Amino acid sequence: MIWSPAPYPWPDGRRAAACFSVDVDALSPYLWATRDARPDTIAVPEHRMAGMRRGLSRMTDMLARLDVRGSFFVPAVVARENPGLLPGLVERGHEVALHGDWHEQVGDISDQQFTDALEASVEVFVAQTGQRPTGFRSPAWEMTPHMLRELRRLDLWDSSLMGDDVPYDIEGVTELPVRWDIDDAIFFKFLGAGDRAPRSHLEIGEGWSSELSSARRHGTLFMMTVHDWICGRPARIDMLEDLWREIVDSPDIWVATCGDLARHHRGLTERPRHALTQLPVHSSKGSSDD
Amino acid sequence: MIWSPAPYPWPDGRRAAACFSVDVDALSPYLWATRDARPDTIAVPEHRMAGMRRGLSRMTDMLARLDVRGSFFVPAVVARENPGLLPGLVERGHEVALHGDWHEQVGDISDQQFTDALEASVEVFVAQTGQRPTGFRSPAWEMTPHMLRELRRLDLWDSSLMGDDVPYDIEGVTELPVRWDIDDAIFFKFLGAGDRAPRSHLEIGEGWSSELSSARRHGTLFMMTVHDWICGRPARIDMLEDLWREIVDSPDIWVATCGDLARHHRGLTERPRHALTQLPVHSSKGSSDD
Amino acid sequence: MIWSPAPYPWPDGRRAAACFSVDVDALSPYLWATRDARPDTIAVPEHRMAGMRRGLSRMTDMLARLDVRGSFFVPAVVARENPGLLPGLVERGHEVALHGDWHEQVGDISDQQFTDALEASVEVFVAQTGQRPTGFRSPAWEMTPHMLRELRRLDLWDSSLMGDDVPYDIEGVTELPVRWDIDDAIFFKFLGAGDRAPRSHLEIGEGWSSELSSARRHGTLFMMTVHDWICGRPARIDMLEDLWREIVDSPDIWVATCGDLARHHRGLTERPRHALTQLPVHSSKGSSDD
Amino acid sequence: MIWSPAPYPWPDGRRAAACFSVDVDALSPYLWATRDARPDTIAVPEHRMAGMRRGLSRMTDMLARLDVRGSFFVPAVVARENPGLLPGLVERGHEVALHGDWHEQVGDISDQQFTDALEASVEVFVAQTGQRPTGFRSPAWEMTPHMLRELRRLDLWDSSLMGDDVPYDIEGVTELPVRWDIDDAIFFKFLGAGDRAPRSHLEIGEGWSSELSSARRHGTLFMMTVHDWICGRPARIDMLEDLWREIVDSPDIWVATCGDLARHHRGLTERPRHALTQLPVHSSKGSSDD
Repeated sequence: MIWSPAPYPWPDGRRAAACFSVDVDALSPYLWATRDARPDTIAVPEHRMAGMRRGLSRMTDMLARLDVRGSFFVPAVVARENPGLLPGLVERGHEVALHGDWHEQVGDISDQQFTDALEASVEVFVAQTGQRPTGFRSPAWEMTPHMLRELRRLDLWDSSLMGDDVPYDIEGVTELPVRWDIDDAIFFKFLGAGDRAPRSHLEIGEGWSSELSSARRHGTLFMMTVHDWICGRPARIDMLEDLWREIVDSPDIWVATCGDLARHHRGLTERPRHALTQLPVHSSKGSSDD
Repeated sequence: MIWSPAPYPWPDGRRAAACFSVDVDALSPYLWATRDARPDTIAVPEHRMAGMRRGLSRMTDMLARLDVRGSFFVPAVVARENPGLLPGLVERGHEVALHGDWHEQVGDISDQQFTDALEASVEVFVAQTGQRPTGFRSPAWEMTPHMLRELRRLDLWDSSLMGDDVPYDIEGVTELPVRWDIDDAIFFKFLGAGDRAPRSHLEIGEGWSSELSSARRHGTLFMMTVHDWICGRPARIDMLEDLWREIVDSPDIWVATCGDLARHHRGLTERPRHALTQLPVHSSKGSSDD
Repeated sequence: MIWSPAPYPWPDGRRAAACFSVDVDALSPYLWATRDARPDTIAVPEHRMAGMRRGLSRMTDMLARLDVRGSFFVPAVVARENPGLLPGLVERGHEVALHGDWHEQVGDISDQQFTDALEASVEVFVAQTGQRPTGFRSPAWEMTPHMLRELRRLDLWDSSLMGDDVPYDIEGVTELPVRWDIDDAIFFKFLGAGDRAPRSHLEIGEGWSSELSSARRHGTLFMMTVHDWICGRPARIDMLEDLWREIVDSPDIWVATCGDLARHHRGLTERPRHALTQLPVHSSKGSSDD
Repeated sequence: MIWSPAPYPWPDGRRAAACFSVDVDALSPYLWATRDARPDTIAVPEHRMAGMRRGLSRMTDMLARLDVRGSFFVPAVVARENPGLLPGLVERGHEVALHGDWHEQVGDISDQQFTDALEASVEVFVAQTGQRPTGFRSPAWEMTPHMLRELRRLDLWDSSLMGDDVPYDIEGVTELPVRWDIDDAIFFKFLGAGDRAPRSHLEIGEGWSSELSSARRHGTLFMMTVHDWICGRPARIDMLEDLWREIVDSPDIWVATCGDLARHHRGLTERPRHALTQLPVHSSKGSSDD
């Protein structure tokens, strides 16, 4: 229990920070979900491909107009299938980072499989960009203690957890926390009958703009996460451009990539450090350990 | 991966295109879902019949006021049960096109059954209107490679996929892409306890109007899909009329039927061509093919 | 298929009609759902009882301020458990009508059980009010051909189906159609973890007001359905009062009970008559019957 | 059935009352749900811990700015794991009250286990604060007759049921009723794929402000319930502060803790007393007991 923790120190007297992060999943979640039995229906892969054909390009064009550098998380299979993708993003000034190999879900794989996929992904990035990636985001934002250990071993920052509103340390790993509330997929993703109908981009855009105001008031990190095949559609791109125009026009907000955030955080002398929570053991009467 | 694809060339210097498409399903999805065991309850068929009794007529009256020609997709069973339907639509200047026989779902039928239903539907249209239909929309917007082959064999355009925001070619078929975001059913359809409550027509109308603005800005196709039994109710018809009044009053938008769009697209020398996606094979370590 | 049906003739040159109907279910749906195994938990029955303790009274006080007579549908078990209910409603000038015995769902009971419950309910109404009820609404708005036959045999109007936007005849029964879109339960009912969170009364109130405008424009019936335990809460009552103030201040709207509507409808020479839909039989190739 | 019950008498001629109540669940619902098999994934516990690390402190800072005393319901396991929590809340002038031991769900435990957990919780509170807690709120707002008997035996008020809009008596226990409609969890809680996307804090804040106006008009209790890990995020805290600024600026609203409300209620001579509902027994024909 922390009463009135100190405000997080952003560089150059800025009051808050904002990061435009993109998960370039393309077909990978579909490939993973259907890895054992692939149907011959094509609506879902076609829908997802609209991102690679049109949406991602709209997104990078928009970032160029805004002069914002984004952080793009790319599963290795997507990089292999689209060999121009990582080089094209780097050429446009963006950061690329790890996002699994086949967008494999943590619950579906062993610790060894995670390690193999992580190391294979690093290799693909080095081969295609000539640079070692510096960070990782977990598919579906799930993590385990093993994953944290592996990220620390490879000196990678993480951007998958929600334990605070500002960068923090967990098990020796720099965490750049995400927020469901400013992720596009839970509001807009719609792939067919079982899904919930998309929310209005007007409603969500208004809410995100208000979140931004509150981030400035409270000095927190505005870590937005979008997907090219979801937010690359016309009305959502326009909503994003309006929001980010507001951000780049605000001198008190530091617009940063994940790499920028991690470098800043590691340079701080006082920084939030949260231990991985030790969970109490349940007994029928409860135990008293205070 | 396509970086900055060229804008789609609409005719006469228009900036965008809009199509008013209607799926006249009437009872057919209910008939298909209950084909093996039909309950004796009548709430659902009565609810759906409000479209044939009142809603469709409100819709064609509205289109007449707007001077807009729509594209009406009609399952063959609906045409057979309502013999005045196809002739009445054609007489009012609208396009009629194929939508399965019993609104059969792709996943429920064999390739041969699809072919039989498609050919039987063409016969019904020829018999009732004296004209061969030129296009097809799949029930529930699902497709297979077999279906694409059959459409190409019969020289039919398709309007069921979402792989781009403008017309494109896929496996030799002209695709006039749809969008869940401007379909009425996922927002308004409500047939009982299991369904999610309808969204407000005010919220959706505002969102669709904003989608339209973005279509003009990005030069895309605004392919709206509605159902007479859903949007033929008073408040939704009025919302649609307001939206389409805005469209017909915009000289930079080309109001076109699906047939108009397909004819234009086929006449272009440069047009988006997307191959049916070849899916990589998964191995435990991933394979490198770049 | 009906092209451009004639407008429905409301009395005295009114353009539309509005009816305030209330389903006074109290505990009955809970009693029915738990009839075989009743848990000892009390949150749900306590929640529902707020209607009888406070909400229904707020509703009748509001109707008195508006000078509107409502139509209250009461399951017989609710009348038996609350012997002051039917007499109190009649004394306040409202109409009371049938709504099953234990709010039994059509799918759970046999034809004979429906008939027994209907006849038992009529007896309770006669015993408590001295008057024979003139109409019926089905619990959960489900119907069967048997139910329609029984209503016709007992000369009762019905208000449970959605096959048109104005009163109509079906199998010799006068139908006063309902609409999910102006029912409170699907938007506001929330009884615990499995349910969807209530929608905002501001959003719904705005939508209903717009529905009302469209009913006036299209000359339809605005059949509102509410529940005292749901809409008897403060903010929803205030929303309803604002909406109905608008209605009573509109001289072109006929404010009527279900009984008023049924009497008017039966007196018309030209009235919409819809046959119970004959469903075609499915064969693998489809059958042609036109 | 009560027709036009008397308005509830608030002290000093106030028209309504408002209470800011917080369920400080921290990890306890997760601990309870995973008590038999705990996964090694950490996203959910990390997400929940944001409350203890940051959100709760933002909430008490906000209450200090507003000069409002809140009522904080704390499961005993949370108090044991965070020994500074109860003393810190009391020191800041707030009320602390019981909320189970491990946030155990009523349906999962026996009567004896409830009694054991209740008594163990009282001991923890006495040990940590030196004071006996005066009230209880049930995890998930479920209750049984046994629980009511135990609360009466220990002379504890309750705040878990929804049988009225003002304080009332049930089985000799003072009930301070809650409302789903002004609870944050059902609108904002989101822990992963199965959950529904959070609603906009702007929409909910507008709705709650309107609920407040109606509480003033109808003289009811505005019992708000929030969670530090949900509403401790920046934009929601700001929404709450705007709402409560409106409350503290309204001289006709009595801002009270649950303890204040219970003391006032017990001092009234005329107060709503509702018997635990006796449920009728179902027979196939229904029984007449009026």
